[in-house]
Amino acid sequence: MTPTPADHRASVDEHHARVAALLAGLRSTATETVALEAALGRRLSEPVHSAVALPPFRNAQMDGIAARAADLAGGRAVPVVGTVAAAPGAVAPLAPGTAVRIMTGAPVPEGADAVVPIERVVMTATEAGESAAVADAVPSGAFIREAGGDLPAGGEVLAAGTVLASRHIAALAAAGRSGVEVARRIRLAVISTGAELAAPGATLAPGQIFDANGPALAAAARAAGCEVVLQERSSDEPEDFAGVLARAAAEADVIVTAGGISQGAFEVVREVLEPHGAWVGSLALQPGGPQATARFAGVPVLCFPGNPVSAQLSFELFLAPVLRELAGLPARTVESRRLTVDLDSVADRVQLVRARADHAGGVTPVAGPGSHLVVAMAHADRVIVVPAETTHLPAGSEVTAWVL
Amino acid sequence: MTPTPADHRASVDEHHARVAALLAGLRSTATETVALEAALGRRLSEPVHSAVALPPFRNAQMDGIAARAADLAGGRAVPVVGTVAAAPGAVAPLAPGTAVRIMTGAPVPEGADAVVPIERVVMTATEAGESAAVADAVPSGAFIREAGGDLPAGGEVLAAGTVLASRHIAALAAAGRSGVEVARRIRLAVISTGAELAAPGATLAPGQIFDANGPALAAAARAAGCEVVLQERSSDEPEDFAGVLARAAAEADVIVTAGGISQGAFEVVREVLEPHGAWVGSLALQPGGPQATARFAGVPVLCFPGNPVSAQLSFELFLAPVLRELAGLPARTVESRRLTVDLDSVADRVQLVRARADHAGGVTPVAGPGSHLVVAMAHADRVIVVPAETTHLPAGSEVTAWVL
Repeated sequence: MTPTPADHRASVDEHHARVAALLAGLRSTATETVALEAALGRRLSEPVHSAVALPPFRNAQMDGIAARAADLAGGRAVPVVGTVAAAPGAVAPLAPGTAVRIMTGAPVPEGADAVVPIERVVMTATEAGESAAVADAVPSGAFIREAGGDLPAGGEVLAAGTVLASRHIAALAAAGRSGVEVARRIRLAVISTGAELAAPGATLAPGQIFDANGPALAAAARAAGCEVVLQERSSDEPEDFAGVLARAAAEADVIVTAGGISQGAFEVVREVLEPHGAWVGSLALQPGGPQATARFAGVPVLCFPGNPVSAQLSFELFLAPVLRELAGLPARTVESRRLTVDLDSVADRVQLVRARADHAGGVTPVAGPGSHLVVAMAHADRVIVVPAETTHLPAGSEVTAWVL
Repeated sequence: MTPTPADHRASVDEHHARVAALLAGLRSTATETVALEAALGRRLSEPVHSAVALPPFRNAQMDGIAARAADLAGGRAVPVVGTVAAAPGAVAPLAPGTAVRIMTGAPVPEGADAVVPIERVVMTATEAGESAAVADAVPSGAFIREAGGDLPAGGEVLAAGTVLASRHIAALAAAGRSGVEVARRIRLAVISTGAELAAPGATLAPGQIFDANGPALAAAARAAGCEVVLQERSSDEPEDFAGVLARAAAEADVIVTAGGISQGAFEVVREVLEPHGAWVGSLALQPGGPQATARFAGVPVLCFPGNPVSAQLSFELFLAPVLRELAGLPARTVESRRLTVDLDSVADRVQLVRARADHAGGVTPVAGPGSHLVVAMAHADRVIVVPAETTHLPAGSEVTAWVL
């Protein structure tokens, strides 16, 4: 038998536009305060200004002596009258014609205008203690870090929108921040549907399969920067699904469902959401043909097919890019690779082919196209995207591949 | 004044080797069980085999009818005697010369050897109910997914060492796993030293600065896949530092310290660790010259300088690659870029220059080289690595740059 002919299939581009419209309001303005320890990878929701100058005070760049540069001119020895450590406490002004030992980071005493690294100082014991002399000329300002040299007090440490890496957290800490205001993560709910689904870890009854979609879509959402606020299975009973959906809508910014949207007799997602104005249709896409979008209690709902490969690839294609952008994560890596074997593709369908890359720039499809082949997909590391109009690609063709 | 001349400086390569030897035992064999919800990004510590075949039973690939292919030959109509849903429960064998409606994923009844998609079936109402006929020839096995077609029962779902992405979690769930055994994260302790350090969020007394190193190194460790089990500040009192160190050693696989290892008068890390056989020295590296390594109560200790830029770059250079490899994270991205300006570099020192990339393949140093410029470093997105022997690079030179 030949494949089912296409009838009224929407293009992938049309569906991207439909999803974009549905999710247009998803960029939340909600923020939350997190401690610096929990801020890694979060996106600042406001510019951060420093309460203090950085450095907060004039300090020594090296271990050495602090003195007036002029007092050291011509190699003249000056008495060393004390030591200034990098430690709390006020530091006495430096009397003219004297020097102090000083440690890196310690406040430079008022009156001193130069620090000389200890390796360049000739220290001599005297009756009164010790004296210091420097052979080379010492310029005023040498080895001194001025207060505010990195940032003046009130200066902007980081702009709003910065996605925080460790170097940003260093700057925030240096500026005295123990917590920051960040964009709240997108709260996502996952509902997998199907009377046949059992919880992983249970014992399978005849006719049951373990639910792969719930754990897979929840993990994909976390990888895309979301907080998963609900992950439940629903039977094919409309009351059951409507109940889960209501709980999801009360908690989530966006809801993802798997299953229940094709042409069969027990299509619970379709049955419950069509009266709410859902768009339900078929795309020129394989796997991932059946798709739906809806809004339930104001919350956008993306409905993916129930075959686990279809559900995962639908998430990657339509939702992950939006979520990653909102979370400030880098876009998916897309490569050009050379097919190692011939590849046939169904006409008038964008085909998403699970594949593995090699070290020679090649890419090879793995296993078959069946959208139930969840283990085979786990062993893939690329997805080849075959355009709708392409029906055959000879070995050696350059193809576009997503890096998984 | 000219820079301090080099004296007995160890090379960066020597120190890499010293750190590698120190950390050779760090690959922990310790494992822990985590729920599937918490398994994203973790590394499997054992191969996972499936308790069930995948699929667990022979099932329909499409919504349609299930029948004996031979019974449909020549377009013959057969009575439709029932419906099989994708739902738990035993399914009765198919009587010869009959068909059943069947849903995607539903068990194919014993006796049936083909599924025909509903779009290709001509259904006719009869007195007894309805009958089904198919115009095209139906091959035996059509649209049936055989039990074990993805993986036989007992087959390996994933190999030990797999770093779990969402597609792996899908396969684990499909195989019935609700939790997995993964390598325990490396437990890392961070101790920042210096009497001058105040907790971010506190009010600064004269001579105090906020501790940037603690939060920065903890965040860098988390970004490199570690669990941070301790993050404390220590004064310059040996008893204080030894106390924190003992607490750290009781909890951590590896300890990182900042400060207290140079030539000043209050070098607490050096003072406490030299009696334990610490290596303390200077590297041909800027920033990051002072470095030390030790073992305390059997736990490896990496000691970085206290200037926050030096501490962060030391972590990136010497520790992050080891930790990322242990966590199964990808290696740092290194690029070749074109300098947009002239760059001078101190002789006989590997120089790590904070810089920003542009969209034309260029890279431009940011701010000055001062290792206290923590805000300037936050605004960098690259680090240019200048080899020790290089003292001048004209604008246009190709340089090696890490992506931060």
